[in-house]
Amino acid sequence: MARKLVVKRGTKVGAPPGTLVHIGKHKPDNAAIHLIDYAPDELRESVIEDLASYRRNGDEERIAWLNVAGVSDASVVSGMGAIFDLHPLVMEDILNTDQRPKVEEYQGYLYIVLRMLQFDQGRQQIHSEQVSLVLGPDFVLSFQERPGDVFEGVRERLRAGRRIRFMRTDYLTYALLDAVVDHYFEMLEFLGEQVEALEDQVIDAPGPDTLARIHHYRREMLLLRKSIWPLREVLSRLSRDDSQLISEETRLYLRDVHDHAIHVIDNIDTIRELLVSMLDLYLSSVSKRTNEIMKVLTIFASLFMPLTFIAGIYGMNFDVMPELRWRWGYPAVMAVMLGIIVGLLAFFRRRRWI
Amino acid sequence: MARKLVVKRGTKVGAPPGTLVHIGKHKPDNAAIHLIDYAPDELRESVIEDLASYRRNGDEERIAWLNVAGVSDASVVSGMGAIFDLHPLVMEDILNTDQRPKVEEYQGYLYIVLRMLQFDQGRQQIHSEQVSLVLGPDFVLSFQERPGDVFEGVRERLRAGRRIRFMRTDYLTYALLDAVVDHYFEMLEFLGEQVEALEDQVIDAPGPDTLARIHHYRREMLLLRKSIWPLREVLSRLSRDDSQLISEETRLYLRDVHDHAIHVIDNIDTIRELLVSMLDLYLSSVSKRTNEIMKVLTIFASLFMPLTFIAGIYGMNFDVMPELRWRWGYPAVMAVMLGIIVGLLAFFRRRRWI
Amino acid sequence: MARKLVVKRGTKVGAPPGTLVHIGKHKPDNAAIHLIDYAPDELRESVIEDLASYRRNGDEERIAWLNVAGVSDASVVSGMGAIFDLHPLVMEDILNTDQRPKVEEYQGYLYIVLRMLQFDQGRQQIHSEQVSLVLGPDFVLSFQERPGDVFEGVRERLRAGRRIRFMRTDYLTYALLDAVVDHYFEMLEFLGEQVEALEDQVIDAPGPDTLARIHHYRREMLLLRKSIWPLREVLSRLSRDDSQLISEETRLYLRDVHDHAIHVIDNIDTIRELLVSMLDLYLSSVSKRTNEIMKVLTIFASLFMPLTFIAGIYGMNFDVMPELRWRWGYPAVMAVMLGIIVGLLAFFRRRRWI
Amino acid sequence: MARKLVVKRGTKVGAPPGTLVHIGKHKPDNAAIHLIDYAPDELRESVIEDLASYRRNGDEERIAWLNVAGVSDASVVSGMGAIFDLHPLVMEDILNTDQRPKVEEYQGYLYIVLRMLQFDQGRQQIHSEQVSLVLGPDFVLSFQERPGDVFEGVRERLRAGRRIRFMRTDYLTYALLDAVVDHYFEMLEFLGEQVEALEDQVIDAPGPDTLARIHHYRREMLLLRKSIWPLREVLSRLSRDDSQLISEETRLYLRDVHDHAIHVIDNIDTIRELLVSMLDLYLSSVSKRTNEIMKVLTIFASLFMPLTFIAGIYGMNFDVMPELRWRWGYPAVMAVMLGIIVGLLAFFRRRRWI
Amino acid sequence: MARKLVVKRGTKVGAPPGTLVHIGKHKPDNAAIHLIDYAPDELRESVIEDLASYRRNGDEERIAWLNVAGVSDASVVSGMGAIFDLHPLVMEDILNTDQRPKVEEYQGYLYIVLRMLQFDQGRQQIHSEQVSLVLGPDFVLSFQERPGDVFEGVRERLRAGRRIRFMRTDYLTYALLDAVVDHYFEMLEFLGEQVEALEDQVIDAPGPDTLARIHHYRREMLLLRKSIWPLREVLSRLSRDDSQLISEETRLYLRDVHDHAIHVIDNIDTIRELLVSMLDLYLSSVSKRTNEIMKVLTIFASLFMPLTFIAGIYGMNFDVMPELRWRWGYPAVMAVMLGIIVGLLAFFRRRRWI
Repeated sequence: MARKLVVKRGTKVGAPPGTLVHIGKHKPDNAAIHLIDYAPDELRESVIEDLASYRRNGDEERIAWLNVAGVSDASVVSGMGAIFDLHPLVMEDILNTDQRPKVEEYQGYLYIVLRMLQFDQGRQQIHSEQVSLVLGPDFVLSFQERPGDVFEGVRERLRAGRRIRFMRTDYLTYALLDAVVDHYFEMLEFLGEQVEALEDQVIDAPGPDTLARIHHYRREMLLLRKSIWPLREVLSRLSRDDSQLISEETRLYLRDVHDHAIHVIDNIDTIRELLVSMLDLYLSSVSKRTNEIMKVLTIFASLFMPLTFIAGIYGMNFDVMPELRWRWGYPAVMAVMLGIIVGLLAFFRRRRWI
Repeated sequence: MARKLVVKRGTKVGAPPGTLVHIGKHKPDNAAIHLIDYAPDELRESVIEDLASYRRNGDEERIAWLNVAGVSDASVVSGMGAIFDLHPLVMEDILNTDQRPKVEEYQGYLYIVLRMLQFDQGRQQIHSEQVSLVLGPDFVLSFQERPGDVFEGVRERLRAGRRIRFMRTDYLTYALLDAVVDHYFEMLEFLGEQVEALEDQVIDAPGPDTLARIHHYRREMLLLRKSIWPLREVLSRLSRDDSQLISEETRLYLRDVHDHAIHVIDNIDTIRELLVSMLDLYLSSVSKRTNEIMKVLTIFASLFMPLTFIAGIYGMNFDVMPELRWRWGYPAVMAVMLGIIVGLLAFFRRRRWI
Repeated sequence: MARKLVVKRGTKVGAPPGTLVHIGKHKPDNAAIHLIDYAPDELRESVIEDLASYRRNGDEERIAWLNVAGVSDASVVSGMGAIFDLHPLVMEDILNTDQRPKVEEYQGYLYIVLRMLQFDQGRQQIHSEQVSLVLGPDFVLSFQERPGDVFEGVRERLRAGRRIRFMRTDYLTYALLDAVVDHYFEMLEFLGEQVEALEDQVIDAPGPDTLARIHHYRREMLLLRKSIWPLREVLSRLSRDDSQLISEETRLYLRDVHDHAIHVIDNIDTIRELLVSMLDLYLSSVSKRTNEIMKVLTIFASLFMPLTFIAGIYGMNFDVMPELRWRWGYPAVMAVMLGIIVGLLAFFRRRRWI
Repeated sequence: MARKLVVKRGTKVGAPPGTLVHIGKHKPDNAAIHLIDYAPDELRESVIEDLASYRRNGDEERIAWLNVAGVSDASVVSGMGAIFDLHPLVMEDILNTDQRPKVEEYQGYLYIVLRMLQFDQGRQQIHSEQVSLVLGPDFVLSFQERPGDVFEGVRERLRAGRRIRFMRTDYLTYALLDAVVDHYFEMLEFLGEQVEALEDQVIDAPGPDTLARIHHYRREMLLLRKSIWPLREVLSRLSRDDSQLISEETRLYLRDVHDHAIHVIDNIDTIRELLVSMLDLYLSSVSKRTNEIMKVLTIFASLFMPLTFIAGIYGMNFDVMPELRWRWGYPAVMAVMLGIIVGLLAFFRRRRWI
Repeated sequence: MARKLVVKRGTKVGAPPGTLVHIGKHKPDNAAIHLIDYAPDELRESVIEDLASYRRNGDEERIAWLNVAGVSDASVVSGMGAIFDLHPLVMEDILNTDQRPKVEEYQGYLYIVLRMLQFDQGRQQIHSEQVSLVLGPDFVLSFQERPGDVFEGVRERLRAGRRIRFMRTDYLTYALLDAVVDHYFEMLEFLGEQVEALEDQVIDAPGPDTLARIHHYRREMLLLRKSIWPLREVLSRLSRDDSQLISEETRLYLRDVHDHAIHVIDNIDTIRELLVSMLDLYLSSVSKRTNEIMKVLTIFASLFMPLTFIAGIYGMNFDVMPELRWRWGYPAVMAVMLGIIVGLLAFFRRRRWI
């Protein structure tokens, strides 16, 4: 429930475009810049402590992947912007971590924003942060809000000298996008299982928190969909556009990620509709149970009220009540009462209440 | 209810593209490869035990249809991939049996994924599995998750030497697609009949499981729709694209399957909306019945409470209660009670409760 | 309620395309073939008993309209197919009377499928059947499931030698389509009136079958919409396509039928939304009435329970109950009871319950 | 409530296209033809009694606007059709006053159908009729169902010799369309105010007719939307098409009316969604009130039933009931009762019922 | 709640296009015209008291931004129109402050309408007014309904001589649009927080005004969406059209504002769906609580009614009631009562009511 509907933009409102102020809630102390600089036959890995000392590689054969973890430090982003000649709007968007996923082509590079969702096994929570990718001819920049990401597999493959080392930056970007989308499935599996468990609960034994949990998952699905839906378009554009930065071969791979993204959305929509159906089921079964409780009450009340009334009659203290003196008065009254019971039970049975 | 909302991808998350690991739940022991190799005037049928011994036919006039039942054995798929020169992404998608239906054009062949739905008469269950088709100039590959399929009719027609023997691979692919879509109707008939029976139940005599069954069918329809909806687009592209692998004549047939697929979706949507209407009907009739039960209760309570109260009055033991001594006290009280009954019944009648 | 959600395809599933087996429920004994053969200045009308004896007219100026009533006899359709050189898929679609409305262009002719809806005044039921039209340069074939159609007006105009006699086959086809769509309005009027009567019932005096009737009309509207919606596209394509079989002048007329079809769908959608609003109204008014019944019950119970309790107190038989001996005990208790009644009525009035 | 869902077409069904029979409910005795014939410097106004005597003006500089009020007289429409060379379909559509708004281009003129909605202050009702416009190079024909229209302002501007006198027929047509759309706003204001008053009623004090009124406005909005929605497309086509009858300058004005029409639809949709939200609010507040009534009932019943039972116990007439003889029996029982009351009140308070 | 669904157009209906009458509710006494006239190296700021004395700057290098606060004075707008040669429709739209957001290209300038939303901290209300922008080659005109706007930041940047001073009018227009859209986020944050607070209330402790507040926010969201939705299209057109007034560089910036506008709409839609889910939650939890209350009532009534009845039996005054004389009659009856209690509690426990 910790996720906000709308992220605060605070001091940013009214500032000129290009004002570099971090907007978002994660505020790690320092930004960690991790560099993987590689060519097909060789790979160097380092942590850049001082951005001022970094120089772009003149060798176009080499590819540099700079990953920045922690974008709350505006100076790091502006430093990167100066080195790689980024447009002020790009720098602004990297810092403003409440962006809608999008891809934009600038002179010499593509800028991609999307959301990285990770499932935190410990806290059983979905963790969401913005990832910005800048795809240049010989560099890939990735900016995330906090340390810890889904890219470890990509790093391993790079280090292991696999196919990815022989490809260009477009393939590396694809690998990063693929890693992000693959983790969406992990989350969906987790949520899918929880929703199915909740479904069993709704059918078999709704508890006091069932309703709140249905609402909770509807909310989660709403926020997930908002995060992922625009990515569909981003990937579709990447796999179709004629940007020179992306090769024909890589477009095939991007088309594949695009299909996965649509598949994720299909799944989200299915879960959302299932949740609506579950709520309908819940509401209907509450109504049905209320109906059944009412039946029990009505049967009891209808049976005993006339009887108690009759008993009340003969509990009256009038001096002149001839029946009270009769020899068979008591058994007669009991017989009348029995008759009333039988009659009412027949009435209820005809109404199919019992 | 056994069908999962989201299929587990397990170990696959984070792996590089092209990693050949089977993702899915069906794990038969071995993959069975069945070969039908034919020309207009002749047909050979065999089971390939050892893929290594298989050689592609040099004769372009002949057509080879290899059907692989059981894709959990990644080595078979990679073996086939080597023989027919399949793209790593294609092999990955064949193994990953939770794909969204799609068609993709690669150099020299088309790759089609769709879902084969069979109705299991014994267990009264819908059985769903992924089918991958690879359409080459002189070969058709079909991959299914488990033995047992809907293609027997196609095989019979091939063996019988009918028209299909004289056509190319595009027509064979069409025949396979047609067989799959035709079986969707079989399932829809079954579900349609069950939903109509449920509808009668809702109208006439809703039972304790009516609600859960409505929900069950809404869920089934959701999953069916998710499986079939993208196929619409696949068939539309196949019947319109200008791939050289598909002849003008066959496009006519594919257009026909496309119409059938849309018809299936129309039917699913109609059933879905009917189920919503049925739930509304159920909910409304429960409300109406609660209302009627309440009426009975209220009438009984309103009639007997005042009467019991009056009887209670004259059951009190005060020393000084003059009425108790009156000669006509008892009949007078009974008359008052009768008056109350008549008055209340008139009141209820005016309110149209009785 | 007799209309099936999904029509059985029975033995057809798995058969090769072009297998001519009738699929549908109407099985008249024989197919009746009615021929109108005309030129501007002359018209011949006959019933073809033996299809083998029929020869196509060599004179291109003459137009032949063959109407086949009863398509369950596959041999008649295949006979027609042989004479007019129809594609196997067309013959299959004519026999399979559960087609989605569509138009398809074949070499030399257009094939149109749609549904003819007739309102059966006697049984107060909508009667639906498939009509297939084949539009050739000098012939029009119409196939219906059963005898009896909406084309009598067209026949009259042909016999009367009116404008239609001077036009080509496209205009005749238009006239047939127009007759079908015009009858949709007839049905809508009937349904519209019934739904409005039902609406008055919902507002004024909902009866025991009101709910089932709302559901019934929602179902009818669902099925109608499924039948008519695709026709929209069919007519749009006919009025825009560049088929040489349809003249510019006739396109104007087809555009008009297209507008009518959209108007029909607008009306269906309006009725559907009205039915949903009616159900909401029904449900809300049931809730409101339950609420009112509860008020009556609560007022009665709250008034008489305390009073009966007090009466019960003084009905106890304790030896030592000083009040019972008091001179003014009885009047005092009655005064207390009156006070309670007044207090509770004031409480209910403040809550606006009475 | 007088507006019909579907207008009867009666005798028209089955008639050939071009049959001139009036379809609609308004049947004024005679059609009144009003002519305004003008040039920039001069204007003549007359009522045409006998159509046969009317001659078209040979002077192309002059513009003739013929307004026909009352289209039930088919002979007037056919007379106009003969004079201005109208297509049979156009004449048919003018007479059939249940058309969907549309624009159609014919040789030499444009035919526009739309609905004129007027708010009848006296009867507090919306009055709807069809208006057909024919836009020729030097004439504008307008056909309405009944006398009385929204065009008086346009006539005044023509008479006053304002800008409109210097423009061509396209501008006059624009002025007429603008007058019709401007009156939609008038109606929306009226309905908007009524719906807002109803909203206050729902929130503050729902009355017995609140539900029926919500339903009534939903119905009105449905019918309004059906009437206006297609106009959007009509105006969009008029402002974009390349018909020579419409000048570039006038297109700017038509674009403006188009924006207004979309604005009207936006408003209708907003009101519709508000009505749904109001119904939800109503339904929820009825549920809440039922809940509160139930609480009162349950508290009363739960308090007094145990007490009355205890009183009943000591009202029994057993010979041997030791408590009855005890000195402090009565006070003890009263103390027990008080204890029960306190206990139950604490229970209800813990449940937050009181 | 003060915002009207539909703004009154009053006297305007029926007037010719171009009639300059102010339509709207804000009527400040005078219009204040504020001029900022600047070049990269210099800026002059003044208030124009008398429009007649204003002369357009001949120097094309300089840019003039005229901001008019208060458009109810039609003479000011017509004066501006005369100076800057505005089309009558533009002037009309500026005065009519109930426009749908739109952009229109005229000869020599672009006309943009949108809504400026400000959050009034004091009154905790959203304040909405129409802003019209006219973008010329060397002038920008902005018209607002009342003094007080969101443009102060832009003015500061102009005065400070920042980048904006070196750009053309397109960039100034962008800055104004950006300021407006940025303030949408401010409002969304405010509303988002309020809706989340309401959500907690619905889950934890719904109060008497919860329902009305949900409805209130649904209404606000409806009106917000209606105001902002068309802006999406406006910004999309501005960033893609080929108007010469907008440079390539500025298009990048406009694309960014476009993304922000879509993001705003995404957020509005998410909040709207959340509100629907909250209402469902509320309704369901009321039903559940009614159910629980009914259970308590039914348990109490079912327990005590039989007991009270039995006590009533032995309170009857028949002369002949043998049980009353029995030695163990009283304990026996008490035992029977205990048995009934135990039996009923077991029954309720089996039904899982307790």
